[in-house]
Amino acid sequence: MSIDHGAALERMRTAAPLIQNITNFVAMNPMANVLLAAGASPAMVHAREEVEEFGAHIDALTVNIGTLTPAWVNSMMLAASTANSNSKPWVLDPVGAGATTYRTGVARDLAGLKPTVIRGNASEIMALAGETPTAKGVDAGDAVSAAQSAARRLSSATRSIIAVTGPVDLVIAPDGRRADIANGHPLMPRVTALGCALTGIVAAFAATTEDPFEATVSALAYYAIAGERAALTSSHPGSFYVAFLDGLHALDGPTLNAAATVTLS
Amino acid sequence: MSIDHGAALERMRTAAPLIQNITNFVAMNPMANVLLAAGASPAMVHAREEVEEFGAHIDALTVNIGTLTPAWVNSMMLAASTANSNSKPWVLDPVGAGATTYRTGVARDLAGLKPTVIRGNASEIMALAGETPTAKGVDAGDAVSAAQSAARRLSSATRSIIAVTGPVDLVIAPDGRRADIANGHPLMPRVTALGCALTGIVAAFAATTEDPFEATVSALAYYAIAGERAALTSSHPGSFYVAFLDGLHALDGPTLNAAATVTLS
Amino acid sequence: MSIDHGAALERMRTAAPLIQNITNFVAMNPMANVLLAAGASPAMVHAREEVEEFGAHIDALTVNIGTLTPAWVNSMMLAASTANSNSKPWVLDPVGAGATTYRTGVARDLAGLKPTVIRGNASEIMALAGETPTAKGVDAGDAVSAAQSAARRLSSATRSIIAVTGPVDLVIAPDGRRADIANGHPLMPRVTALGCALTGIVAAFAATTEDPFEATVSALAYYAIAGERAALTSSHPGSFYVAFLDGLHALDGPTLNAAATVTLS
Repeated sequence: MSIDHGAALERMRTAAPLIQNITNFVAMNPMANVLLAAGASPAMVHAREEVEEFGAHIDALTVNIGTLTPAWVNSMMLAASTANSNSKPWVLDPVGAGATTYRTGVARDLAGLKPTVIRGNASEIMALAGETPTAKGVDAGDAVSAAQSAARRLSSATRSIIAVTGPVDLVIAPDGRRADIANGHPLMPRVTALGCALTGIVAAFAATTEDPFEATVSALAYYAIAGERAALTSSHPGSFYVAFLDGLHALDGPTLNAAATVTLS
Repeated sequence: MSIDHGAALERMRTAAPLIQNITNFVAMNPMANVLLAAGASPAMVHAREEVEEFGAHIDALTVNIGTLTPAWVNSMMLAASTANSNSKPWVLDPVGAGATTYRTGVARDLAGLKPTVIRGNASEIMALAGETPTAKGVDAGDAVSAAQSAARRLSSATRSIIAVTGPVDLVIAPDGRRADIANGHPLMPRVTALGCALTGIVAAFAATTEDPFEATVSALAYYAIAGERAALTSSHPGSFYVAFLDGLHALDGPTLNAAATVTLS
Repeated sequence: MSIDHGAALERMRTAAPLIQNITNFVAMNPMANVLLAAGASPAMVHAREEVEEFGAHIDALTVNIGTLTPAWVNSMMLAASTANSNSKPWVLDPVGAGATTYRTGVARDLAGLKPTVIRGNASEIMALAGETPTAKGVDAGDAVSAAQSAARRLSSATRSIIAVTGPVDLVIAPDGRRADIANGHPLMPRVTALGCALTGIVAAFAATTEDPFEATVSALAYYAIAGERAALTSSHPGSFYVAFLDGLHALDGPTLNAAATVTLS
């Protein structure tokens, strides 16, 4: 078993999928820039008055609860249901799940709508699965390995692909498939919202690769390798972000396949 | 007939006009940075409780419906009416008009308040004029040339300057004047919100140049040439945005006049 | 009397304090990036439903009224009260105080909750102290020196440290101590929200240095020197911001102490 990540990337670029994002205020701008640099077309639409109608046009949806309030949560639920009705993939980013009762409850309600993919750090995935994480902010406090059993249980419960991102990313499918992606760079969590923006890339790949497990693995590998390459020319977060956006734009399929360190099992 | 774009730029920088922006969450930051780099003074104020009082201080207003909701739309309408009452120029950016019934309706309501300038891509201008565009997201799906008759009709109906931006920008005045600006670079739409931020630059020029047609043409030429010059040193979107901001700050009047490729008719 | 700014910086980095920010839409992203580059951990949480519970986890809070609306103001008041109850430092950034009746009133209500530190430009501090500033936007129109007596009176009334930032920053303590920080660079106000993001750095230092006067002075010196160093390699605002973030990340304690131009009295 192997995955042609480069072909997935080129398929995504050719299709330039329209990705609707209901995301947090910190991530709005980098999410749009990351999607544009990669070759997708972002749209930020969250008004209850247009979410259902707009849902007919999109290729995939992302929902991120980072700066949630009740009005926004209503739109998130409506947009997710619309994506389900239209058989469009959608990706949940449960930012800060576990930090407060309200936030954890909203994350679980959204997970109950059976996202195609759930992408979070270890603490967030553990909180979603009913475990008690150690982190209290939005930066991961738990190691990816600590979230393995939580990811398995969550995947079984929601039938979602679960992506736990960290130094080595872990992807779990409800049918038991697993991938470990050993790419990336420690500067990535020093730039805000790169995890949030990755959720958009997962959606863009899921819109253009039929198997959501393979789509998620290829998206994570692509993103992490763009980070590795950015670190070749910059060692501080300001210039790293600039180089990272450039790398998302410049990276081609053969280079991606050659650099990917993915273990499938 | 010719326009001294360089003189318009230097007049704007000397005045450093205060530009109020009610814009979308993706564009908030680049809009402020673009205005500061160019030499204007941005302010983001949208609360119903202060829009009218703040309107007495400003030199121009922009209204952008990108991430609209009913509460924000109320403030947009109030701010636009206040600008009209105070005889201050204001610029409408009808992001995504045509994508949903709600959005198209709001865009038309705002256009009914007779903006000084309306700046959009071809699909948005066509939707505002009652035509059916092909684009469903916020990235233009139609060619500028397809929007010519729509721009003429819209300009007659609203008495606004209509700016249709794309590979070659088109500007139409209600008195029949027309300009085509053949500057710019394909990387510009690969950076999010550069179109939105251009709306701010149009407002800054309209605040400091009496004829809004000439102000719009000079603003578009200035912006597009900063893009051309950024592309001399960068070929990917991350570094392009950095070089573009630098270019807005560095570009001087004589260089602008020498590089402008503007056809007036 | 002297302050070891370098030790304060290293103490902050070791602790990596969790800073909750209720800030404006323009500043959300740079605030998070500035805090991450400096070594702190930012979280943007503003929902009434979780502000009190989240307040138990944080090390400090910032409140910035830049794009205020009544619902956000309610959360600001609740978060500030929670910080007081938990004996956590909090910093008020009264953006645009003086520009409208509503904004000035909200700023005074928040100041009435006795922030640990109030950081603003001269016009904002004058407005908070009941004087009539000349500025009408968010960019300072008054010189720092014009705000000296206002800062003294405000500090006496609120028992807060008052930081007036500008070409030479002024810090006043309610016990009469004063510092003047003659570092910084004129490009800093040409990048949006750098003042807002500085408020986050003040909070991060106040979370990890016991004396809030010393914490504020060290935070301002650190920030201004990162700006000076960024200006060594860039002379326009786009590349300046990139170099500034890099500098916040790269600057070490001994270099900070050597470059600081602080007068204590």
